[in-house]
Amino acid sequence: MVDICLIGTGGMMPLKDRWLTGLFVEVNGNAALIDCGEGAQIALSCSHLHISRIRMIVITHIHADHIAGLPGLLLSIGNSARTEPVDIYVPKGSLKVLAGLLSVCGGLPYDVLLHELDTENCGKFGENVICPNSEFSYMPLRHRIDCLGYSFILKRKPVFDPNTADRLGVPVNMRSRLHNGEAVTLEDGRVILPQDVISAPREPIKITYTTDTLPFEELSAFAKNSDLFVCEGMYGDTDKKESMNKKRHMLMQDACRLAVDADVKRLWLTHYSPAMTCPKDYEETLKNIFPNTVISVDGERISL
Amino acid sequence: MVDICLIGTGGMMPLKDRWLTGLFVEVNGNAALIDCGEGAQIALSCSHLHISRIRMIVITHIHADHIAGLPGLLLSIGNSARTEPVDIYVPKGSLKVLAGLLSVCGGLPYDVLLHELDTENCGKFGENVICPNSEFSYMPLRHRIDCLGYSFILKRKPVFDPNTADRLGVPVNMRSRLHNGEAVTLEDGRVILPQDVISAPREPIKITYTTDTLPFEELSAFAKNSDLFVCEGMYGDTDKKESMNKKRHMLMQDACRLAVDADVKRLWLTHYSPAMTCPKDYEETLKNIFPNTVISVDGERISL
Repeated sequence: MVDICLIGTGGMMPLKDRWLTGLFVEVNGNAALIDCGEGAQIALSCSHLHISRIRMIVITHIHADHIAGLPGLLLSIGNSARTEPVDIYVPKGSLKVLAGLLSVCGGLPYDVLLHELDTENCGKFGENVICPNSEFSYMPLRHRIDCLGYSFILKRKPVFDPNTADRLGVPVNMRSRLHNGEAVTLEDGRVILPQDVISAPREPIKITYTTDTLPFEELSAFAKNSDLFVCEGMYGDTDKKESMNKKRHMLMQDACRLAVDADVKRLWLTHYSPAMTCPKDYEETLKNIFPNTVISVDGERISL
Repeated sequence: MVDICLIGTGGMMPLKDRWLTGLFVEVNGNAALIDCGEGAQIALSCSHLHISRIRMIVITHIHADHIAGLPGLLLSIGNSARTEPVDIYVPKGSLKVLAGLLSVCGGLPYDVLLHELDTENCGKFGENVICPNSEFSYMPLRHRIDCLGYSFILKRKPVFDPNTADRLGVPVNMRSRLHNGEAVTLEDGRVILPQDVISAPREPIKITYTTDTLPFEELSAFAKNSDLFVCEGMYGDTDKKESMNKKRHMLMQDACRLAVDADVKRLWLTHYSPAMTCPKDYEETLKNIFPNTVISVDGERISL
């Protein structure tokens, strides 16, 4: 089970009633936070999330609204009696900025491990950090500075067929090994393979997070079949399209079209412009493009 | 008239219901902000203050709860169509940290002028920046890292005596020159000196802001006769004294005693520990030490 919470839905600057965009992904008490704008630690608290559970922080890009909350959050993690290291992943070339930000933290009671990710190619990282059989993948986006989109992927065991196992005479104490992909030899010498007792594979759980970027075709390929697609939608007013192209952002409508192309199960819109005071105004229009669109609010949650 | 607002009252970390400590000092539409912790721009907005009026930002020390809001605030000042420069004053040795923080701002549409202040001696700066006849003074405090206390001083014209001016036959159109300290020559050749028509000098308006520090004797000399003394009071529980000495902070009671020694008009306590959920609990005890003590809340205001 993956518990997901969108701690804020704003872009550019935090508002009195709208925190900056960030996604908390938790599995069995270990969490990753994607993006950490100013006030992230308060946003986490408002959503009743535990900062002590954060094992990794993943940053899309080094604009202040995605990273300026890092010093405060790291200090507060330290005050939560943390001693295990925290891994921070940033686009390549960001380490100097990161070091500058961290210079106001003084000494932290745990190690901060900094990792740079390639901004030219797609890749993977964070295997089994927040839970076994999980990993992150990343993809370069198209913003004004280097920016990465992320997917969190949790592989799931295939469906085990107990009736077939009964028929083959597999003892109960050998079944979990088979389910975990290991062949077993029975007392009578017969070898049973995992595929003999598996009725169906299961798709991984996939959560994709992409902001800030122009919409582009490969992005829907990256988000393909996501259970949850969290995507920026700066404005719902289509008159803003030219301005969005210039600033290398996208409209809510663009995100909905990507969701259609990617065939995702649900879309959460976020990263609203401070000038868009009522994102819900566009709900009907957007659901006409992609029915399972959620005009997210701060603290939006789901368990997958 | 000086309009003052304490935008937050917290120390260490911002809370859901308590912003970090910072003081907004405004005269005729020009303002200085002392300290800029995470969320300062939202705290300013919650107090209905205009960030576009900020001409200077004055930082006590480079701990995150006093400086981490700087990138977000500077960006938002930029979004408020600012083109005039902003002066930032920090203790000597802080420029590298400041540069690190500002590296997430990208290009701002105005100049940021950085100034370092001596951490060994007292001094003055910011003469006539937010208004004529005003200046800041600073004094090294006693914290874990270099930290400065600040006074904002607004000199006031002495009291003009219109009756004496009438008696001396000073025409109305010459009176403002006399009030501004200039001698005038009447038509009959008599020279009138400013002191001839001044009934009394007036003390400057003085606002002193000191956090984070141990209490010490020279501090009350620095705050002497302030109209408003804003001072940290991390805890009201006197059992915390030893811990405060170790962390180089002070109790609310220490601040009250300094207020007595400094003979200030009023004391605003601030920079409460996140662990102190109800600072008002100590009100009676504290007023027994210094009657004009205010257990400040976020957005505390006064015009002097």
